[in-house]
Amino acid sequence: MESENKHKEFMKEAIRLSCENIKTGGGPFGAVVVRNNEIIARGVNRVTRDNDPTAHAEVNAIREAAKALNSFNLSGCVIYSSCEPCPMCLAAIYWARISRIYYGNTKQDAARINFDDAFFYDELMSQPQDRNVIATPLLSEEAQKAFVMWMDYDDRTIY
Amino acid sequence: MESENKHKEFMKEAIRLSCENIKTGGGPFGAVVVRNNEIIARGVNRVTRDNDPTAHAEVNAIREAAKALNSFNLSGCVIYSSCEPCPMCLAAIYWARISRIYYGNTKQDAARINFDDAFFYDELMSQPQDRNVIATPLLSEEAQKAFVMWMDYDDRTIY
Repeated sequence: MESENKHKEFMKEAIRLSCENIKTGGGPFGAVVVRNNEIIARGVNRVTRDNDPTAHAEVNAIREAAKALNSFNLSGCVIYSSCEPCPMCLAAIYWARISRIYYGNTKQDAARINFDDAFFYDELMSQPQDRNVIATPLLSEEAQKAFVMWMDYDDRTIY
Repeated sequence: MESENKHKEFMKEAIRLSCENIKTGGGPFGAVVVRNNEIIARGVNRVTRDNDPTAHAEVNAIREAAKALNSFNLSGCVIYSSCEPCPMCLAAIYWARISRIYYGNTKQDAARINFDDAFFYDELMSQPQDRNVIATPLLSEEAQKAFVMWMDYDDRTIY
């Protein structure tokens, strides 16, 4: 029961951030990252305020959490987001090795206020040549150089 | 022909960045954003160096480009990446409204040096309840508050 209340407390904080952010010129999204039952980072959507298309609430909360822990690996952490993560944020959550996601609004709710990521999911699921943003291979052989160098580099940090 | 050479010149710069980045402790990835046939931003993978799991080359190049243009909308821009974008970067490219992608290494090349994002694509294509990182709705009704506030807020910046 206590744990259930804790979950709600963290989600309430994400929701509070999402509301507060509107008043300061941001989008209606907030997120917190929790570790050992404590909030270690907060994030809000700053896309328009900071002119940064990647500055979604979850991405910002992840960046803050990684800074707080001094690590790019957030395994064991839980993210509470006021809205179901978009594909960018979901992939960021995977790269960060976050263990669990709780979300408030659904992506259907987000679509209703014109933050529709359904198109993004469709595009990601399409083959590169069938996407709206065309992706073309170029100088693929030359690009391999860096990968060969990487495999030969003894001091590389693997992640 | 000149245009073909221009494309190659921009990709060569992305590849150069990917090689150089290894020597300074980063991963083997580089990207440039081009507008009107000019490089306006560069990015390299700084995940391990900056302890930022979102700091992929494309994300960093997009953030720099948006800063350079003072806009979250990069439509008309082209991104040249030394490697095919992962789902996080691809979604970031969509959010940034970038118009075209050129890439050097393929994701199969990346998988061979243990940067495998195939699992990410599988997960993104799965339904939330079937994913490895479980996502659970919580306080969905309360979360709607921010969306209602947003729609009622006259000064909102739409994107």
